[in-house]
Amino acid sequence: MNPNSSYYAVIFTSRHSENTEGYDDMANKMETLAKTQIGFLGIESARNSIGITISYWESLDAIKNWKQQTDHLVAQQKGKQDWYNWYKVRICKIEREYEFFKD
Amino acid sequence: MNPNSSYYAVIFTSRHSENTEGYDDMANKMETLAKTQIGFLGIESARNSIGITISYWESLDAIKNWKQQTDHLVAQQKGKQDWYNWYKVRICKIEREYEFFKD
Repeated sequence: MNPNSSYYAVIFTSRHSENTEGYDDMANKMETLAKTQIGFLGIESARNSIGITISYWESLDAIKNWKQQTDHLVAQQKGKQDWYNWYKVRICKIEREYEFFKD
Repeated sequence: MNPNSSYYAVIFTSRHSENTEGYDDMANKMETLAKTQIGFLGIESARNSIGITISYWESLDAIKNWKQQTDHLVAQQKGKQDWYNWYKVRICKIEREYEFFKD
């Protein structure tokens, strides 16, 4: 991450359909691929009744490039066709942050 | 939510300690309480290896008020003392969003 300058997050919130065949593989592939993209800073995700994946990026341009990356486009298409009943994407600017670590 | 004007999110990412006694009760209580706060728009959360809770707010002032709400301060204290090994809070401005629903 980059605490000294502003950065951006993509909040991806989703609800799966019944058909999740191939989803885990694709999710892993996309996470690996995201990490190779210019401007990528980090990714966090968790799922139970809904899934939340947040990816962090240096700029809005980096986010736009990732959205249009060819293999990612295929994954998005497959997601809409098969894996998701619903999702929402929010592009955010991080205004400030703080962190706690137990000693 | 409020799609017509900008709004804010608090991304709360956390890792539990071994001691989570009382955590679920408190989390439910805080979610119920957050929903009564002025400027509250919504909340989403998921947990497996890490927990992610995102709350949405009309303004930075609403976020500040919620951070300082008395019962919430008690919960934050208890969280640092007992429930979390690590957490990170990011305050974000939603720049834009889009949504997909399966027909």
